[in-house]
Amino acid sequence: MGRDNSMRLTHVQTSHERNTAQSSNPQITSVSSSARTGAPALTQPMLMERARNQATFDSSLLTEIIVGGKEAVARQNDAFARIEKALGTDDLWKLPPRYGNMDREEMLLEGLRAARVTVNDGMDHGHKIFYQANHEWALSNANPFGLTGLLFIPMLKLQCNPEQLAHWLPLAESGMIIGSYSQTELGHGSFVAGLQTTATLDKVTDEFVIHTPSIPAVKYWPGALGYASTHTIVIARMIIDGKDYGTHSFIMQIRSLEDFKPLPGIELGDMGLKMAYNGTDNGYAIFNHVRIPRTHLLSRYNTVSRNGTYHADPLREKLLYGGMIGARSTIIRNSAFQLAQALTIATRYSAVRVQGQRSIPDEPAIMSYKLQHYRLLTLTSKAYAILFASMAANATYQKLLEAQARGDHASLPYVHMIMAGLKAWCTQTAADGAEDARKLCGGQGYLTMSGLPEIVASVAGCCTFEGENTVMWKQVSRYLMKGMAAPALPQDMAYVCSYTDTPLASHDGNAFLNPAVLVQVFEHRAARLVTEAYELLCAEQGSAVTAENTHAVALQVAARAH
Amino acid sequence: MGRDNSMRLTHVQTSHERNTAQSSNPQITSVSSSARTGAPALTQPMLMERARNQATFDSSLLTEIIVGGKEAVARQNDAFARIEKALGTDDLWKLPPRYGNMDREEMLLEGLRAARVTVNDGMDHGHKIFYQANHEWALSNANPFGLTGLLFIPMLKLQCNPEQLAHWLPLAESGMIIGSYSQTELGHGSFVAGLQTTATLDKVTDEFVIHTPSIPAVKYWPGALGYASTHTIVIARMIIDGKDYGTHSFIMQIRSLEDFKPLPGIELGDMGLKMAYNGTDNGYAIFNHVRIPRTHLLSRYNTVSRNGTYHADPLREKLLYGGMIGARSTIIRNSAFQLAQALTIATRYSAVRVQGQRSIPDEPAIMSYKLQHYRLLTLTSKAYAILFASMAANATYQKLLEAQARGDHASLPYVHMIMAGLKAWCTQTAADGAEDARKLCGGQGYLTMSGLPEIVASVAGCCTFEGENTVMWKQVSRYLMKGMAAPALPQDMAYVCSYTDTPLASHDGNAFLNPAVLVQVFEHRAARLVTEAYELLCAEQGSAVTAENTHAVALQVAARAH
Ligand SMILES: Cc1cc2nc3c(=O)[nH]c(=O)nc-3n(C[C@H](O)[C@H](O)[C@H](O)COP(=O)(O)OP(=O)(O)OC[C@H]3O[C@@H](n4cnc5c(N)ncnc54)[C@H](O)[C@@H]3O)c2cc1C
Ligand SMILES: Cc1cc2nc3c(=O)[nH]c(=O)nc-3n(C[C@H](O)[C@H](O)[C@H](O)COP(=O)(O)OP(=O)(O)OC[C@H]3O[C@@H](n4cnc5c(N)ncnc54)[C@H](O)[C@@H]3O)c2cc1C
Repeated sequence: MGRDNSMRLTHVQTSHERNTAQSSNPQITSVSSSARTGAPALTQPMLMERARNQATFDSSLLTEIIVGGKEAVARQNDAFARIEKALGTDDLWKLPPRYGNMDREEMLLEGLRAARVTVNDGMDHGHKIFYQANHEWALSNANPFGLTGLLFIPMLKLQCNPEQLAHWLPLAESGMIIGSYSQTELGHGSFVAGLQTTATLDKVTDEFVIHTPSIPAVKYWPGALGYASTHTIVIARMIIDGKDYGTHSFIMQIRSLEDFKPLPGIELGDMGLKMAYNGTDNGYAIFNHVRIPRTHLLSRYNTVSRNGTYHADPLREKLLYGGMIGARSTIIRNSAFQLAQALTIATRYSAVRVQGQRSIPDEPAIMSYKLQHYRLLTLTSKAYAILFASMAANATYQKLLEAQARGDHASLPYVHMIMAGLKAWCTQTAADGAEDARKLCGGQGYLTMSGLPEIVASVAGCCTFEGENTVMWKQVSRYLMKGMAAPALPQDMAYVCSYTDTPLASHDGNAFLNPAVLVQVFEHRAARLVTEAYELLCAEQGSAVTAENTHAVALQVAARAH
Repeated sequence: MGRDNSMRLTHVQTSHERNTAQSSNPQITSVSSSARTGAPALTQPMLMERARNQATFDSSLLTEIIVGGKEAVARQNDAFARIEKALGTDDLWKLPPRYGNMDREEMLLEGLRAARVTVNDGMDHGHKIFYQANHEWALSNANPFGLTGLLFIPMLKLQCNPEQLAHWLPLAESGMIIGSYSQTELGHGSFVAGLQTTATLDKVTDEFVIHTPSIPAVKYWPGALGYASTHTIVIARMIIDGKDYGTHSFIMQIRSLEDFKPLPGIELGDMGLKMAYNGTDNGYAIFNHVRIPRTHLLSRYNTVSRNGTYHADPLREKLLYGGMIGARSTIIRNSAFQLAQALTIATRYSAVRVQGQRSIPDEPAIMSYKLQHYRLLTLTSKAYAILFASMAANATYQKLLEAQARGDHASLPYVHMIMAGLKAWCTQTAADGAEDARKLCGGQGYLTMSGLPEIVASVAGCCTFEGENTVMWKQVSRYLMKGMAAPALPQDMAYVCSYTDTPLASHDGNAFLNPAVLVQVFEHRAARLVTEAYELLCAEQGSAVTAENTHAVALQVAARAH
């Protein structure tokens, strides 16, 4: 930012500088630590090499399973190598500037730089690797162009009619326009039905008038809204002839493509410093009677004719649900990678960090402490559990999409529920796990340059956005209570029925090593909890909403058990 | 820092600015939200007022119990008011600069400013309120002068002989010198016995020579070491006539009091950006044969005469243990306040944040959601549990100090164990709880200006410093296993004995509301786990250290249960 770097106090030395500094201090470099003080004779690279050689399986094969085949791995590796080179972060001896001494402005510009490089790479090499995750494995909305791939394009695909898609998609995919997704308002987050921004049809000019009627209606939080996006999909209540048709999606240009200034009637700004995602510009928007063509209503499942007649596909709601499911599926998958990333750092560190008495001969690193080992292994298995659950859930979701294309929406409630539950469980597990991985590195994990604080803070955000986790569990419990009230239990709830018939057999300790027994135990527990919650609800007099609230804790426990 | 603020992207508006901005947008200010959209008629201040009026107890009385009497509350409130005024943060409509757009350098300077103001206030008004916690309730080591009160002065009091104390204490208390505590090295954190820095006696000049013999021996992490402290207590192996007497504490000047430059032979620097505590300069130090007078060995419990004869009080180790116990007691107490602070923000927000359908008539805020309410209450009770546990533990510790003054060290192992266990349990509970409080605020909790990310990150640090928590649990389990092996169980472990004699009576559900029954259940569980762990250890052949490691998980579980 044109500042004189020599002024900086916090000058983190690169390894090169450090070596130079040291050689001016011969007392230190001339003394090998082992010779003087009995420190370990094995160097850290040797310890790492040895740990790697102990693997009893072919790690490249595992990578192929995770990424999706040999070719995909090669394509991904190539892309990452190009990005790192373009960003100047391929020299592993240099600290990425973000971990040094930047203020928010510099972090944002750094995010912008990364965004340009990744988007250009995708276009030059025809891939979408950075549509969902950025080059550092955070969700792609961590940089200002990332929301275009993460939400803007998927929402266009879901909600545009063919002409709209033909117009907007190429613009978005070629980077001619930058997108954002403006749903949340200052006063309306979890409660989407309460959004207050209005889109009022003006039949005279054939336009919608987008307006922010109050302070709580200010759009607040959308990624890339503050400075980067030229266009946004805005969710607003559609008003025609004084009638409120509820929330609909509109595409609108918000910035000039010439000078990037906000268009007349639009106030845009950044929300300020956040726990993470400071490389992007989560922003606010205030609309003062801004006019957009009527044809900017995204019209795949709902249309408004020239004379203001509204028509909606009877299945509109169901079909639109798909959008959220897709985004949640991305978040779930990515949380596995962020947890894995934190664990990779912690595991490597544990393989080379020497601390304390060597309890196991020849095993000087902290990995030899059982508790360190146990925590790392448990967390690693959770990362795999999240990954494989996300793969299974995604397969189910793809099947739903195929079925929906044939007009069959039967599995929608199930897929919606399973994605909501997994979103809540996986993001919370990943956030807690990443923080534990950080703690496993002792003091080093507290330094920004370990990379861990940033990973922890960014995965923690996933517990809140795209459906706050508590609210996600509520959707699961609603599904369960609906299932209980239905004439026949849905297939995935069949186990609830059997629990009253077949009491749980008692087992000796060893039986718990048998997965089938474990499943049986979990089913039994879930069945009891679901049934009890349902009975509590049924016994309640007042309104359904009140009853649901009174027994919220029982319901949440039941939802988690399921 | 002399930068042009108009350049800044992230310009967080103060409320005043916001109002001005709004009045230039008459469309918005002229529309009351309730009139237009049925938004809540109760304003946030009204909701807060109502929530406060619902209290069924006198909150000022509770404050007095927490702080220690009416007078102490008044003194504390006055001090805080003066500090806020001096720092210009008393205008609640203005965002403290730290939450805006600062780089590390500016954060550090801000920390320095706060440090000056708090230290001066203490001297001007004769109090030590900011010796342990800073004006924002983080531990006082969050600013560059805080370690002087938190560790430097207590360590002087503990380890200086009378002449040393008469010399150093007034200097430290008057702010003429700034202290730090240099124990941790790059390669030696938890394993204090492994420290490598040397202090070699030169009998010719009657000096100790402080030296860093290797890279792993570089002092690494001490707060205030990077830039602020003029003096440090350095922990080094004492070498006399080639004999290594193990680690001892030395006081040494590290910076010129004229120009603040590091003294010859000393390289000092800052460690860079951290998760929190960026207002202070955790630093590194490399010593190249630095000479200090022999009399700088802190000599209350150990002396070295002019001719190099070493003498140590036979109880030296035991007496020095007290230092750590005191610091841990401070950390425990403070973790209660940091958790409480996060909960205060989350509770107030929950009382005024309106979101979703009003399930309870007349209760529009999210506090009316049972899950929100339940989580807040559970966490609040944990904050009180930590506070009262810390008060009890501190009372026990004071008794130990009195007993030690009479030469009675019998309760030292118990107090050491209880403080280690509480340190681990309380800091982990507070860190998890603060993060949960943050999540309870939805998106707002993710913004730095909510204050929550900083609280979460600073309390998380307490899990690592002054004894990494895993290592703390290990000390508890060692105490337990020692107790089991002793001819008679220590008093606090008496319950272990009774468990084999009196099997746990079975109870119906309601009995669990009886605290006595709960205590019985917990005792039973702990007794079983401790006994089992002990039996596992006894059955093990090899060395004690290996056996301890093999059953580390069982031991940790037992320690937590106890
Ligand atoms: C990093 C980040 C990026 C984001 N990006 C975008 C974006 O690109 N576009 C966009 O539109 N939005 C975005 N958001 C906004 C995000 O979707 C909202 O923050 C989220 O929906 C939660 O809403 P809220 O913040 O209003 O919290 P609230 O809904 O006010 O929740 C506050 C608390 O109330 C509780 N609560 C609320 N409703 C209920 C209920 N019915 N039952 C029980 N408890 C309840 C919650 O559990 C929570 O504890 C982003 C947010 C973050 C943090
Ligand atoms: C914010 C902050 C401020 C600090 N301030 C100071 C200061 O003022 N002065 C000072 O001297 N130091 C200070 N420290 C250093 C701090 O005391 C050390 O970081 C801490 O003692 C842990 O040591 P380490 O970082 O070397 O971690 P390590 O000891 O290397 O621990 C790494 C991992 O190994 C595990 N491990 C280590 N030993 C064992 C064992 N025996 N059994 C089982 N597991 C084990 C740990 O549980 C942990 O998971 C500070 C640290 C921080 C983060």
